[in-house]
Order: sequence, then structure tokens, then C-alpha cells
Amino acid sequence: MKFFTQLILTTSIVMAFCAVAAADTYYSYANGKLERPQGYRDWPYVGTPLTPNDMNGGKAPFPEFHTVYIDPASWAHWKKTGEIREGAILVKELISVGVKSAPSGQGYFMGEFLGLEATIKSEKLFPNEPGHWAYFTFSRPDHETLERITPPEPVANCNECHRASAANDFVFTQYYPVMRATKGTGEEGTGGKSDELVHLPGMPQR
Amino acid sequence: MKFFTQLILTTSIVMAFCAVAAADTYYSYANGKLERPQGYRDWPYVGTPLTPNDMNGGKAPFPEFHTVYIDPASWAHWKKTGEIREGAILVKELISVGVKSAPSGQGYFMGEFLGLEATIKSEKLFPNEPGHWAYFTFSRPDHETLERITPPEPVANCNECHRASAANDFVFTQYYPVMRATKGTGEEGTGGKSDELVHLPGMPQR
Repeated sequence: MKFFTQLILTTSIVMAFCAVAAADTYYSYANGKLERPQGYRDWPYVGTPLTPNDMNGGKAPFPEFHTVYIDPASWAHWKKTGEIREGAILVKELISVGVKSAPSGQGYFMGEFLGLEATIKSEKLFPNEPGHWAYFTFSRPDHETLERITPPEPVANCNECHRASAANDFVFTQYYPVMRATKGTGEEGTGGKSDELVHLPGMPQR
Repeated sequence: MKFFTQLILTTSIVMAFCAVAAADTYYSYANGKLERPQGYRDWPYVGTPLTPNDMNGGKAPFPEFHTVYIDPASWAHWKKTGEIREGAILVKELISVGVKSAPSGQGYFMGEFLGLEATIKSEKLFPNEPGHWAYFTFSRPDHETLERITPPEPVANCNECHRASAANDFVFTQYYPVMRATKGTGEEGTGGKSDELVHLPGMPQR
């Protein structure tokens, strides 16, 4: 009997440990405002569009690299089901172009952090937003500081374009091969499992 | 006394659980060849240089986006100490440019996976490589398949350029703001903790 008592106690403690490790809320939203999320450079990586200032009349709407991350629980859910879960948050960090030439060739190379955006899918929090997606910006015009809390953007600023043009549930997966490869594929799409670099469905023609 | 027995047993089991979770080898190297690493799209993200074909005479040496990842144990070590640990592996996934125009502006947007490279720092495995860094390519000229195992590249192909030009221990941190921000800063540099987007040391002038 002592053994079973130990076993139950041990199992409970290990399960409690697991529960803490798998906590699935990655933001705080209260009184109509989102607190700036933290620690997202530890999160799974989604993709990096680039809209450099020098290809957008000197002033890109989103300067310039956009590194996109997804919270770990939503990443696990995406791999398992191919769906964006209720409560998911994606973060977009804006980064300047630093230099345009390096030993690896001519191109665009990351410089400094410029800003931060985020989007949350939640029917519970945003029942009236199209698709239940709300969009937030912590960026400031000086590109040197960030807001600490911020309200959702009006639908016309972000949601409308995501609804009209994003390939998969308001997410621009057509520009994110990592998302296309891992959509409902379990661990198969996480890289290196196959000799074939298969063509991924969902990419628009150039 | 029974309580202490339980406590010790429980602690041991939780510690064993932690040890499994923190297993720190992310590759298999045997008989002078590296097996293609797997699951790297789950790893922490380092940065994305871009050398598009259309800025490199139609044929970039590394086409075109380069998504760089670092193994989770080396990421933890980097954040804690600011050093690349013995045994670290970094993976570079090559991705085509898909389109050059999107709702967010003119630019470069990711298309399909094209290839895979990796580098390992190990004095134990590579005592004679400069800096103990060995470099590997799994890419093939057709850009549609990958090697399964591959030997290190000759020093002149990769190591020499990393030694000469990379800012931090053979790693091009000058193009990786994420690495600069998290170098020895614990969790402070993982994003969103400060209102200030401080200028990071180590970035070359444009």
C-alpha cells in the first residue's frame, strides 16, 4: 500500500509539473486592452516577409523584415489538427534592414528592432470581430519605443485585409512555408524527415 | 520518515523527467558523416538573411531566404552565458522567393523549401577545424531533394569565411538581432520586457 501511495503522489506531482509546463495562455487582455506580450523570441517561428523601405517609396507600411512567431500551444495544436485554436496569439516583430551586402551575397540583412504587432483569435474575447480575430500594434512612430498596453485596431486597419487576402483563417500561410508544411502533419513537417522537398499546396504563382 | 522517503522518490522522478526533457544532443555524427537533423522547425529562431537570385546575377550562392535555427539547449546556454556551447548545432533552411508583391507592400515573400545546411561546434568531434566548427550541406543541385548523410565541407568552402567575417565565434550575429539581444541576458532579451527598443551592439554601419 505504501508503494501505491507513493506512486499516486508521484504521478500527481509529475502531472502538476506537466500542467505548469503546458500552460496555454500567453497574454493578458483586460479592460479592452492587451498587455505587450513577452518572451516571444522563445516561441516557434512562422516566417519572415520583407517589405523594405527602398521598395516602398522610402516608407514601407511595415518596415522592414517582419518576423512572425506563434505561441507554443497554438503551434502544437496547428501541427496536430491543421487549425488555429481558440485563444491563439501570433506576434510580428518589425526589424530594419541593416546592410545590403554580406559575404553570402547581395541582399537584405537584418538590423535593429523597430516595432511589434500582435493578433489574437478568440471568440470569447472578440465575438464581434470578423473571424474572431483582433489586431494590435505596440509600435510607435519613433520606432524606438513600444506601447505597454494597447486596444484592438479598428477592423478596417488590419482585419479587413487579413479576411480578404490571407489563405488560411486570416493567416497569410501563402507566405509561410513552415505553416504549410506543418498543417496537420504532426511531427512530419517539422523538417528533415523526408528526402523530398515537396511542393507545398497554397503558394500563389509568382 | 515516510514523508521524506516519498519526497526523495518524488524529487528523483521529477528530476529524471526534467533530464529527459533537457536531453541536449540534436544530431547523429558517425563514421565522418552527419545524419540530416530533424525537427528543427520546432527550434528557436535565429534570423533570416535574404540573398535573392535577382540581386545575384540570377544565381545566388544561397538561394534565397536563409532561415536559421539553433538547438534548444544551445539557445538556453546562449541566453545564460552569451557563449556558443560545445556540441551546438545551427541549421540553415534555404527557401525560394515566392512572390514580390503582397497586400503589405512590395518586397520579398517566402515560397518553397530549396535546401538545408548545418554547422556544429565540437572540439571533441572536430579538433582540427578552425574554432572547432564543421559545416555541412544536405542541399542538392536540383533543389528538390536532400542528402540523408553528408561529410563536413572542406575548410575553404564555409569555415574560412565564417572565421574571417562572422562577428561572434564564427556566427554572423551582426545580421541576427535576436542573437545580439539575447546574448547573456537571461530572459531579458526574449522580447517585450522593455519599452525601449535599444540599439544593439555589433551591427555594422549600412
